[in-house]
Amino acid sequence: MLAPNKLDALIVTSPPNVRYLSGFTGDNGALLLSDGATALFTDPRYEIQAAEETGCKVIVARGPLLERLMTEVRRKHLRRLGFERDRISYREYQSLDECLAPSAGLQPVVGAVEQLRCLKDAGEIELIRRSMQIAVRAFEQAAGRVRAGMTEADLAAELDHRMRTGGAEASSFETIVAAGKRSALPHARPGRAPIREGQLVLIDMGALADGYASDMTRMLYLGEPARKVRQLYAAVLEAQMAAIDAVRPGVPAALVDRVARRTLRGYGFDKLFVHSTGHGVGLEIHEGPRLGRHSQDTLEAGMVVTIEPGVYLEGFGGIRIEDTVVVTSSGAEVLTQLSKELRVL
Amino acid sequence: MLAPNKLDALIVTSPPNVRYLSGFTGDNGALLLSDGATALFTDPRYEIQAAEETGCKVIVARGPLLERLMTEVRRKHLRRLGFERDRISYREYQSLDECLAPSAGLQPVVGAVEQLRCLKDAGEIELIRRSMQIAVRAFEQAAGRVRAGMTEADLAAELDHRMRTGGAEASSFETIVAAGKRSALPHARPGRAPIREGQLVLIDMGALADGYASDMTRMLYLGEPARKVRQLYAAVLEAQMAAIDAVRPGVPAALVDRVARRTLRGYGFDKLFVHSTGHGVGLEIHEGPRLGRHSQDTLEAGMVVTIEPGVYLEGFGGIRIEDTVVVTSSGAEVLTQLSKELRVL
Repeated sequence: MLAPNKLDALIVTSPPNVRYLSGFTGDNGALLLSDGATALFTDPRYEIQAAEETGCKVIVARGPLLERLMTEVRRKHLRRLGFERDRISYREYQSLDECLAPSAGLQPVVGAVEQLRCLKDAGEIELIRRSMQIAVRAFEQAAGRVRAGMTEADLAAELDHRMRTGGAEASSFETIVAAGKRSALPHARPGRAPIREGQLVLIDMGALADGYASDMTRMLYLGEPARKVRQLYAAVLEAQMAAIDAVRPGVPAALVDRVARRTLRGYGFDKLFVHSTGHGVGLEIHEGPRLGRHSQDTLEAGMVVTIEPGVYLEGFGGIRIEDTVVVTSSGAEVLTQLSKELRVL
Repeated sequence: MLAPNKLDALIVTSPPNVRYLSGFTGDNGALLLSDGATALFTDPRYEIQAAEETGCKVIVARGPLLERLMTEVRRKHLRRLGFERDRISYREYQSLDECLAPSAGLQPVVGAVEQLRCLKDAGEIELIRRSMQIAVRAFEQAAGRVRAGMTEADLAAELDHRMRTGGAEASSFETIVAAGKRSALPHARPGRAPIREGQLVLIDMGALADGYASDMTRMLYLGEPARKVRQLYAAVLEAQMAAIDAVRPGVPAALVDRVARRTLRGYGFDKLFVHSTGHGVGLEIHEGPRLGRHSQDTLEAGMVVTIEPGVYLEGFGGIRIEDTVVVTSSGAEVLTQLSKELRVL
């Protein structure tokens, strides 16, 4: 990470990047990566925890963390210092700048650690698999109990609770439960109106377990779905499966997106697909690679991504089907072990 | 806010401050406050919501928000521009800086909106009262069901779920349930070990409802408490009530902290009280004023603060008692309507 940017050191301040590189899970930590050595700076509250979690040298700062880090920078005569441009606050930047020796300089670095994080090792894939299992189990337990009269907020709370009691430390994002017309809003927040007969219900959820996220979307229908719902559903399902079929190492991420769009175009529904096909999942719910029209990323074995095409008809409703999948050496392994049929209640 | 800093305009980017000044609750918004006019910038996803929630002029940006805002700044020939130093990311700052006209300048502003937010109006106090009621009800429902063998994580999940189903959109912070020795860690995360007979259980929790937070701490004991536990508990309770008695307009916040410490000193326990006595609560769980040893703040009617002294004995356990209170014209109104006795199960 240092050589391509001609850096003497990189200062890492974003919690998921600190965790990824050092194993440290505390709230307040910063890393100084220099030639062959990595030091973790934290405060006295985390002294014991840091020593347990990380193999890095741990330096416990009694005062402000970044000031202590910069003392170390000066002691080691490090001059070309990278910092995480998109992850640092203005105040943190200022504090680095103020402690800078006259001969040293700060250089913005974009996405260096994020790029490493795109490729998951076997241990990380196991954690994501388990996170997905927790979400799937919560969905299975709750979905059968959905009845007309229940609110979106009630169902979201139940899903969240079942993930927690099933072993998640939290939901990986604010669970979406959107019924009827509201399912046409890709990022609807659960509301207090009751779910009614004759409504589509979109459920987009994921767990966070041992720090790793998962992500899935399934659809319910209360009552007998009209022909139009069945048609839209079948088209999205075909697009989703075609996109998964396109996943393999060496394939441009943009191609996977194109496959989903092309399938929907066959039914005249491509204009209703208003977002991209997927994104990487790991320590964060949204990370690289991006599976969109303009993505420059290429799929590689070990990436974990969502495949989630959808169609949205204002005033009518929306349908999205989403799995989390691993790019394997020969194709894709779907972690979301759950039927993709429209679940009619 | 503009005059004391000799500003032509203030750019507000932190979500709680945007919400406070405009009513807008979306994720992506920025305000431009200039002489008599406030404009809210947001993206197309929030166009309808913004129009419903705010009385400000709404400007929907098709591209990056802050670039659009700076176009408006140039159009209005605004030159001395304040920005929120402690709330802006380096990247946002950079994007303001890049769009700056040669004759204009950026000036860091600290805590301007936060200071206004310290004083709550009657509507805000009602929302905090309701948020507190939701937390109290969840505690009452769950506390009686605590049994040996239940884990900290299970109890935390149950409290969170009861707050959600009781009307909260979320917990106002990660609920703390800490049993036995772990109660001596002021910020313990709930663990997977079962709660056992003869253990103190510390529960620190709050709801977030209609955007407003609440905060409380209560203690349980499984079995018959030893004399030492009773002694420590009585001292903390006395300190907490003495601190609440000291709350009234015009009183330095540091004095309230001193009163709590002095009471504990009478029992020789003051060294065990390792944090400050309290903090403001509102749109954020931690806001002004601060009730600590070095606080420069003075209490005023309309402030809402926590009063939460505690004692922590490594290897033994900790005891904290916390209420959320309103500073009234004559003293304090306790919003946490719940017995402060040690709850023996």
